[in-house]
Amino acid sequence: MNQATPPSDKLDADEPDTMRLTEADARAIGETAVQRIGYGAEDARIVVDQLIDNMLCGYKFAGLPRILAMAGDKKLKQGRTPIKVVKETPVSALMDGGNNVGYVACYHAAHKALEKARAHGIACVGVYNSYYSGRNAYFVEQIVKQGYVAMHSASAQPHVVPPGATQPALGTNPICFGFPSEEGPITFDIGTASLMWGDIMLHAHLGEPLPEGVGIDAQGNPTRDAAAALKGGVTPFGGKDYVYKGYGLSFAIQALGLLAGSFIAQGAVRDYGFLFWAVNPDIMLPGNDFKQRMSQYVREMKALPKQAGVKEIRIPSERANKERERRRVEGIVVKRKVIESLKAL
Amino acid sequence: MNQATPPSDKLDADEPDTMRLTEADARAIGETAVQRIGYGAEDARIVVDQLIDNMLCGYKFAGLPRILAMAGDKKLKQGRTPIKVVKETPVSALMDGGNNVGYVACYHAAHKALEKARAHGIACVGVYNSYYSGRNAYFVEQIVKQGYVAMHSASAQPHVVPPGATQPALGTNPICFGFPSEEGPITFDIGTASLMWGDIMLHAHLGEPLPEGVGIDAQGNPTRDAAAALKGGVTPFGGKDYVYKGYGLSFAIQALGLLAGSFIAQGAVRDYGFLFWAVNPDIMLPGNDFKQRMSQYVREMKALPKQAGVKEIRIPSERANKERERRRVEGIVVKRKVIESLKAL
Repeated sequence: MNQATPPSDKLDADEPDTMRLTEADARAIGETAVQRIGYGAEDARIVVDQLIDNMLCGYKFAGLPRILAMAGDKKLKQGRTPIKVVKETPVSALMDGGNNVGYVACYHAAHKALEKARAHGIACVGVYNSYYSGRNAYFVEQIVKQGYVAMHSASAQPHVVPPGATQPALGTNPICFGFPSEEGPITFDIGTASLMWGDIMLHAHLGEPLPEGVGIDAQGNPTRDAAAALKGGVTPFGGKDYVYKGYGLSFAIQALGLLAGSFIAQGAVRDYGFLFWAVNPDIMLPGNDFKQRMSQYVREMKALPKQAGVKEIRIPSERANKERERRRVEGIVVKRKVIESLKAL
Repeated sequence: MNQATPPSDKLDADEPDTMRLTEADARAIGETAVQRIGYGAEDARIVVDQLIDNMLCGYKFAGLPRILAMAGDKKLKQGRTPIKVVKETPVSALMDGGNNVGYVACYHAAHKALEKARAHGIACVGVYNSYYSGRNAYFVEQIVKQGYVAMHSASAQPHVVPPGATQPALGTNPICFGFPSEEGPITFDIGTASLMWGDIMLHAHLGEPLPEGVGIDAQGNPTRDAAAALKGGVTPFGGKDYVYKGYGLSFAIQALGLLAGSFIAQGAVRDYGFLFWAVNPDIMLPGNDFKQRMSQYVREMKALPKQAGVKEIRIPSERANKERERRRVEGIVVKRKVIESLKAL
């Protein structure tokens, strides 16, 4: 999920053809739908828990509508096997995701990392043979809520075109860092493409032009036509001056994917590889005071003198966390058509 | 060190008032100078080994001239104590840098991470109470050369102004990832400021204007005057469209600094904290084949079809590695005045 694209501040209720659901109702509709496309009750709970959290945080396209995309994904048709650990040490694990969707595979990998970090202070866990996992920060929060610092990277199949090349060679490759504080988890979560792939699909669906410098067509030429970019790819983030930072970070995340076994499932080195790293700050700091120091750091950042007209200094994940609190009270607004389609699955 | 600012391709010998030194001669001149400013023989060897490597790789301002900056640093006058481990587990260590320069403190932290990863497969090591450490990739290569995957982040004192603020609050905060391959270490090393602090100083020294969007003066206003920016700060990298990615990454690296004990030396949460993470890929992969897969990945990237006029697809650290090979043969070119100043220390 792209931190540079903050959740909408617009009141959800302004939108036409919507209905307001409680968190519990949204959860029930979602879990039923995920079970209808072939997942068991526990997997459905795991998938929908993230989708609900994404909607609470204001990422509406990462919410219940994703179940419709899951239902149509050709990977779903290829069959699944149970997720299993294929290599393990006290501080590490490699997991075969069994072609289960990333929502489920990464959930188990995150909890494996947590279990090992709890026992030994630190852990590195990877999972391969999986696909779309949604929002990195969701998994990182599972670990951070228990008091651990975490990093999570996700490599994927090619959509991003390296500078100078004419075809995609890297995933949109997000990376997320998370830190516990006295006020709860603080996460920094970015994609390394100039625009999220879901945003390209949305632009194509709506027939809207892409921003300058984002799209590359199938011949390797720049394009503002989103439909053409879907057949080609997108640039790494950074623009003219900083594209080598975006490209390099994407390159490194694809390499971290190798450490998560990305090449094992299909022999392709540029495939899905989800890596988790977790550390208990109490093995590092004599005063066991990471949370307090993190809160102090955030307070100091918030208290900085501001430019004229600036209301506040933004902290990564702060806006999503506030939106979540608000929607827990106000409910979640979903398009009526999405609910109907989910019920028809 | 900023990957986006590649080493110069210009032949060193084109420059006036220079002399060509063998690696051994440059090393001897450097080590003598570092000992004259108060460091012992072993520390001098450690400092100069990096400076020589930086020059070999083409980062000339990160080479022998840095000893002149070290000699004038007020931290040097404050006295030093031996670097020591203050907290330790089988997979982690926290080290007090004893106000030793970062070149030395990070060298020991990197080797501590290597020692622990060798014994237990993974390690997290932090060092605080230190300062300027030079080029992250140098330390990462120490670990990667032995076959490990590594990450290294460095938080520092404020020079970078968060979006919307009027004063600096974050260090230039570099991060480096490193991967072993059959052809040697591959590193990705970036700063998270829009320009390296050393580049701001150089612009001020030469009286050259800064690029648009980089400098912030002491009042918090944009400036192209490098001398004014030295009294204020710089923006995070990213430009208008991606500054929240640069800012967020810098924010996360400052938080990783807390895990390295940045606040312990002076009670300041926004201070120097050097963090190392190392993992043996053989604890992760059943085939123990990380290096081969990394090489395969690089080969595939290099073989991508290229845009018209593009000579090659660049891989992070590739150019620095080639420059190093060239200068090992051709020698290192240093300004005569630098050599004279070093001999006069």
